[in-house]
Amino acid sequence: MPESNNAVLIGTKPVMNYVLACITFFHGGAKEVRIKARGRSISRAIDVAEVVRRRFLPDVKVKSIGIGTDQITSTEEGNQLTNVSTIEITLER
Amino acid sequence: MPESNNAVLIGTKPVMNYVLACITFFHGGAKEVRIKARGRSISRAIDVAEVVRRRFLPDVKVKSIGIGTDQITSTEEGNQLTNVSTIEITLER
Repeated sequence: MPESNNAVLIGTKPVMNYVLACITFFHGGAKEVRIKARGRSISRAIDVAEVVRRRFLPDVKVKSIGIGTDQITSTEEGNQLTNVSTIEITLER
Repeated sequence: MPESNNAVLIGTKPVMNYVLACITFFHGGAKEVRIKARGRSISRAIDVAEVVRRRFLPDVKVKSIGIGTDQITSTEEGNQLTNVSTIEITLER
């Protein structure tokens, strides 16, 4: 799958911040926007996708959803490798 | 999509409890297991799917992932309707 630049990485800010980022991409002519999150931010990623397509842009559809696992080095646990789940939701107009 | 009985509803218990529930379905001959979650349990649902297929049953694949919104009556906020995001991950062997 080719990487596009229209990616919104979900962190700990309020949902509407990321919704606005998605809408800005679509209003700029983007055909696709990818919403990416890991760990506890994953539920917020789904909130963002749902709010974008249900409240603001009804012509936007969920094109695909992928899940995976990233290995990260946790500094809290003495630089041990730990696994964190990831999600990538691709919206298309 | 026909409803099957092989559904694991994710709550707040440890990930391995739900992993074991999925494995038990597959060992009992199930071809498909659906993992369902809403709200903050969504990231745990993905953890469960990833642990099942990466650590225990490598022949299990993610068949489909669906997201949606449920309207729930929040007793905390005076019986107002609030939206909660949902996910359903279907694993198949």
